[in-house]
Amino acid sequence: MRIAVFALLACGLCRGQATDECKPSSLNIPGAPYPCVHPDRSVTFRVSAPDAQKVQVRLGGAHDMTRGADGLWMATIPPQVIGFHYYSIVVDGAVIADPATRTFFGSGWDNSGIEIPEPEADAAYYSAKDVPHGQVSQRWYYSKVTGKWRRCYVYTPPDYETNSRARYPVLYLLHGWGENEQGWHTQGHVDLIMDNLIAAQKAKPMLIVMDNLNAVKPGEDASLYAARGIIARATMADVVPAGGGRGAPAGGRGAFPTNWGAVFTDMLFTDLIPMVERTYRVAPGRDNRAMAGLSMGGMQSFMTVLGNLDRFAYLGGFSGSSGGRGGFDPKTSNNGVFADADAFNKKMKVLFLGIGSVEGPGTKNFSEELTKAGIRNVYFESAGTAHEWLTWRRCLYDFAPRIFK
Amino acid sequence: MRIAVFALLACGLCRGQATDECKPSSLNIPGAPYPCVHPDRSVTFRVSAPDAQKVQVRLGGAHDMTRGADGLWMATIPPQVIGFHYYSIVVDGAVIADPATRTFFGSGWDNSGIEIPEPEADAAYYSAKDVPHGQVSQRWYYSKVTGKWRRCYVYTPPDYETNSRARYPVLYLLHGWGENEQGWHTQGHVDLIMDNLIAAQKAKPMLIVMDNLNAVKPGEDASLYAARGIIARATMADVVPAGGGRGAPAGGRGAFPTNWGAVFTDMLFTDLIPMVERTYRVAPGRDNRAMAGLSMGGMQSFMTVLGNLDRFAYLGGFSGSSGGRGGFDPKTSNNGVFADADAFNKKMKVLFLGIGSVEGPGTKNFSEELTKAGIRNVYFESAGTAHEWLTWRRCLYDFAPRIFK
Repeated sequence: MRIAVFALLACGLCRGQATDECKPSSLNIPGAPYPCVHPDRSVTFRVSAPDAQKVQVRLGGAHDMTRGADGLWMATIPPQVIGFHYYSIVVDGAVIADPATRTFFGSGWDNSGIEIPEPEADAAYYSAKDVPHGQVSQRWYYSKVTGKWRRCYVYTPPDYETNSRARYPVLYLLHGWGENEQGWHTQGHVDLIMDNLIAAQKAKPMLIVMDNLNAVKPGEDASLYAARGIIARATMADVVPAGGGRGAPAGGRGAFPTNWGAVFTDMLFTDLIPMVERTYRVAPGRDNRAMAGLSMGGMQSFMTVLGNLDRFAYLGGFSGSSGGRGGFDPKTSNNGVFADADAFNKKMKVLFLGIGSVEGPGTKNFSEELTKAGIRNVYFESAGTAHEWLTWRRCLYDFAPRIFK
Repeated sequence: MRIAVFALLACGLCRGQATDECKPSSLNIPGAPYPCVHPDRSVTFRVSAPDAQKVQVRLGGAHDMTRGADGLWMATIPPQVIGFHYYSIVVDGAVIADPATRTFFGSGWDNSGIEIPEPEADAAYYSAKDVPHGQVSQRWYYSKVTGKWRRCYVYTPPDYETNSRARYPVLYLLHGWGENEQGWHTQGHVDLIMDNLIAAQKAKPMLIVMDNLNAVKPGEDASLYAARGIIARATMADVVPAGGGRGAPAGGRGAFPTNWGAVFTDMLFTDLIPMVERTYRVAPGRDNRAMAGLSMGGMQSFMTVLGNLDRFAYLGGFSGSSGGRGGFDPKTSNNGVFADADAFNKKMKVLFLGIGSVEGPGTKNFSEELTKAGIRNVYFESAGTAHEWLTWRRCLYDFAPRIFK
């Protein structure tokens, strides 16, 4: 399943007009024939913009579209990496979502999305199959830390309703920058992945709690979402300077709130975990509690778990393992939690580092440094995928069977 | 709560540049200051489209926006009716969602939305309050009738998890044309409405099942979504003719599938109700089963329930009560189900007809004709609201306390 499949087949004919071989993306609105994906994974887009001067598709760079006599603009772009991609359309300078697709919350707004399909067999683990299905539930709760009502989603396994005396371990699972608590079940297919793993008896039935990384104290207006140029350009030029982008200097306008992470951890322990353990049939103690996240959510998971080993026994970073940048020192990094490798290994039952092979060597290097320092860890590489949801689906699929054993 | 509040205050100053008094819509993406709503319910929009020639807002008609030196287009439009409105932006002929708002599935695509707020006290019944909260769960199931996996959402009341021996009545609740199974909990706030009603002991704890109106037999590609011009214009001009709009002749390309409704009813009885009654702790029999829907979903509810009085004891049409158009004849309409008023009244415990006062007199006339024919019914009018979600929130708030008594 994890074999890189960049089949860059010659496909002259199928790059022009859409043909029967160009299959509408599974994320299109009902009935929309475009965008469609050719057998070589090149993609044809179409947008109606009769009076526009210039229209582009932005997906791994900007691609000019060509106007037809009917006012429909079209473009076929080169073969794409398999998996889920956010993308946008630019109509005379306006950065917008393609009205032909369902939208997906990423980069702080409801963007268009396209799924470049894997071979059907490879995608089976996140497809709806004839197995018992759990459910994903929306849950409101009040946070004392933020002074606001919050919404989380909770996956309960297929037997949760019927096995009414069982208690379940809990995985707290986080989205990435610019996304929200809906990412894991819309972009990530967490429910189908777990249903299939549980049916195959590869993973233990567990609850998965998906909350929103954004947590600020009352009166603060900082937001992780405000920290990027695209929102500035699209909607709020006078609120966020154009330079306020990912990785902007801490403390600057448009930068991440300086205390991001700390407030979330506080909210997690003060509000979220108590609500979950009061509301659901949860197995007690650190051995039944895991945390993982993707990208910024992985960084958050590392911060929270490494600072609170008395509360968690499992940790996963999916394209978001901290420590790989800026120098890792086993004696001092993360307040010295790695200094005594034996003590750490006794507490941390699974330390998981996942990454897409296209994302670079940082996570692999970090894993090797940990290993050198005597820290037991699992390194998982998703072949041929980028900093995107297919990497993270695969990470979850590999991580979930390892925990709560 | 239901008093019309069209306060058309003079507000010269607040119609130009956004001020502190122009409050961002609650449906905006995090941090976006526009669209914002002025105290007089006029609305200011802003879109970045530096190179466009013409930009408009479409909300109750098309409104030209004005380009500023910074490439930001702005418009302030006249006071709007309170409640939730879909709207779109037109950039040089491209009909798109405003990137500044969350999107909402309506008219077959992910459109932008704005909430023109009611006075806080009036909106309390669909606001998150410090009461026990139920949850809305996403549930996958396989349909033999359609040959496909389907997704529904199920509201379970706050005590469902803890009161583990209780069995609950079920309301099947449908969205309108061009919407989907997510409408009632995103646009409709079904969960908060029910949480508040149940906390106040005004409604009985019940399950609410929200499915998708679209149901076609295997091999058919008809879709209720394909039947409208906006999709044609935006994305699929060669699939749906421009004339294929709501109310287009049956059987024509782009028209509703001729058997819409019948397949859904078949699916409901064959697949959905059995799945629900197998999966949840459901109280048995027609006295514990209700069906309601808005607009086209109301028409569907009438079709299904009036044809199957042995299975339902409660029926609600929210802006979608059939019988009001094309002549009502108590002897023959709906296969003569109303012909024997006494027999009908014995079976149908609540027949509810709701409508927004701005929608015209059709439903009221129908209610009066029913009354004249001896058919007991409830007529509910939402003051000052249109064919939109605030009407339907209010309908649910009035309907839910009446059923399962």
